[in-house]
Amino acid sequence: MQFLMLLATPGPTELHKRVLDAMCKQVVSHRGPELRELYTSLVEKFRKLLKTDGSVFVLACSATGGIECAVSNIINKGDKVLSPVFGVFSERFAEAAKFYGAEITYLNIKPQTAPTPEIIKGALDEGTYDVALLVYNETSTGVASRDFHEILKACKERNVLVAVDAVSAAGGLPLKIDSWGIDICVIGSHKCYAGPPGLSIITVSEDAWNKIRSSRRPFYFDLIKYKKFYEENRETPFTPAVNLMYGMNEALNIVLEYGADNWMRRHMDFANSIYEVLEKANVKLFAEKEYRSPTTISISLPNNVTDSEIIEELRIKHGVVVAGGMGNMKGSLIRVANMGNLSVEKTVKVYDAILDVMSFKVDGINRQAVEALGESLRKMGYR
Amino acid sequence: MQFLMLLATPGPTELHKRVLDAMCKQVVSHRGPELRELYTSLVEKFRKLLKTDGSVFVLACSATGGIECAVSNIINKGDKVLSPVFGVFSERFAEAAKFYGAEITYLNIKPQTAPTPEIIKGALDEGTYDVALLVYNETSTGVASRDFHEILKACKERNVLVAVDAVSAAGGLPLKIDSWGIDICVIGSHKCYAGPPGLSIITVSEDAWNKIRSSRRPFYFDLIKYKKFYEENRETPFTPAVNLMYGMNEALNIVLEYGADNWMRRHMDFANSIYEVLEKANVKLFAEKEYRSPTTISISLPNNVTDSEIIEELRIKHGVVVAGGMGNMKGSLIRVANMGNLSVEKTVKVYDAILDVMSFKVDGINRQAVEALGESLRKMGYR
Repeated sequence: MQFLMLLATPGPTELHKRVLDAMCKQVVSHRGPELRELYTSLVEKFRKLLKTDGSVFVLACSATGGIECAVSNIINKGDKVLSPVFGVFSERFAEAAKFYGAEITYLNIKPQTAPTPEIIKGALDEGTYDVALLVYNETSTGVASRDFHEILKACKERNVLVAVDAVSAAGGLPLKIDSWGIDICVIGSHKCYAGPPGLSIITVSEDAWNKIRSSRRPFYFDLIKYKKFYEENRETPFTPAVNLMYGMNEALNIVLEYGADNWMRRHMDFANSIYEVLEKANVKLFAEKEYRSPTTISISLPNNVTDSEIIEELRIKHGVVVAGGMGNMKGSLIRVANMGNLSVEKTVKVYDAILDVMSFKVDGINRQAVEALGESLRKMGYR
Repeated sequence: MQFLMLLATPGPTELHKRVLDAMCKQVVSHRGPELRELYTSLVEKFRKLLKTDGSVFVLACSATGGIECAVSNIINKGDKVLSPVFGVFSERFAEAAKFYGAEITYLNIKPQTAPTPEIIKGALDEGTYDVALLVYNETSTGVASRDFHEILKACKERNVLVAVDAVSAAGGLPLKIDSWGIDICVIGSHKCYAGPPGLSIITVSEDAWNKIRSSRRPFYFDLIKYKKFYEENRETPFTPAVNLMYGMNEALNIVLEYGADNWMRRHMDFANSIYEVLEKANVKLFAEKEYRSPTTISISLPNNVTDSEIIEELRIKHGVVVAGGMGNMKGSLIRVANMGNLSVEKTVKVYDAILDVMSFKVDGINRQAVEALGESLRKMGYR
């Protein structure tokens, strides 16, 4: 008997049966009408969800590949780049950019927090920058920027191109590519939209194209090729991951049936209820209150407890899978997804399990607090 | 009613129902035991098939991504690189390498042919090279190198590292990574092994590691990270395309049940019978006889017939999907896969359809020749 796990890692998220079924359709030629229709459909759905009339591409690579694509296209040797760093993914963004010759100014942000418009404005006024690399939601620490559009505005007012890692934000936090002025934005398939892992979605603004046209670009990630192939034939320049596209398309159908705004609000409402319950349970949350991510819940562990023992017990005793800490936080955090379409029942099961396991290892945990979670979510009409 | 097409493009190939079913299993965490088991299983199977005890990685990207990975890791700025060019994919190999600072010496080979050991030896003796970029099977023209191991030997004897594009060769042509001395080899998931599109497989030799350790490497394709994550935890550094891995694993199960050598011989035997029948049918084959690829059959069209009209009629009248020409050959070729596990019945259907459509457009086509195809394959015991 296969014991089915409840997947609550901050990516990948559990796939809906409709998504799984969609993925196992026979593959088609990537130079034929079926793929063109599929790709166009994906692009149009992402345009709607991400609120952009600009370019959208679906790449055959994981989200880090999308980050590689973004920096390789947008960064020229010697570019002055501002990189606020507050976790593994913002560090990686800068590291990826360095390969292409970026001259990085690191802006160290306290890991329990996220950059604010004030901090970014201050940094921008102290130097001159070509590009800012901005992570909207730091999956490694479970913090998200509030007033992110104000940060973008500050950059744009100073003619700084903005490259955004919205990998784990899109779908779960407000995001408006065009009206917020995002030049290049990277999104993962397997986070809040609950598609299969292995695709990266990237958006490109007109300002970004102006820069990209004059930049040296690697072969596989050359966005000019993606643009040409899409505009001429609604195709991808290289073999697409067709079955993942089938799955992603169905995942987006589910989101759109639910309503894009409802989908996002669901993430916010669930997060609020979860954080409230965890506070009542005396769980120590890693992120400071005003920076807590609605999509990634990070829980601090005391020194005598490691993430791996909690993870292992959650797996064995409850069949619940969560993630551990990353980078400097390795060992001292567990990270839980509030992404995609985890039902109320499953969400309750996840936190019931977490509080159960933690209650044996961490002093003062109030297990009963979880009882309020299902009630509070159902009262708001969620199932 | 959905009209099911018969896919005979030289990648992707039709997926076996077992592969389709395997892909629609629920996704798992990429930091848990299920993924470690899956990845290890894939690596071990590829080691067996590719005859290597060295490193094997499965990347979340299409084969061109694998090529990008290979050149970005193996090439340092200023490296002298020998690039025999005889079609789109060999051209691309060089173009990808140029981005990383390769100083390329192009060796133009007649497109109807492939490089021979003599040609390569001659070129090697005229210059000094750090790396040779060798395409084993040129999918764009349907030619393959014979005595490929002799070409490799000539390179190794002169201390030239060999990077091999075996994307559409592996599984359909002899290939022995270790004993042939291949330093870095790239394989596609969706060609002769008939897995889903969207994965790239890469092998790395000890000599290659020695070079890679001292090279600058982009973030997403940094093979040192892949090595570290595999050795320490049997994991990938970045989110793997889990469902594609499920599918690939089942595709390899099918190959191994059939027998790796039988699988390869099947490609060779089918190709021989197909070429014989096409010659009898008076079809003009693009490749010269001794260079014809067993995995990609390329058919030349007369000036008054374009590939797209043949492709369109094959699709509409017969539900058969083949590919057109690429690069300079755009318009003037059709390319047909002999890859994976197309049955005798389906193979006959493909060539029956091709001869039918061509007989109305090209003078002298002998449609009846196809009748011998099924018989000859069945006589050899194929189904």
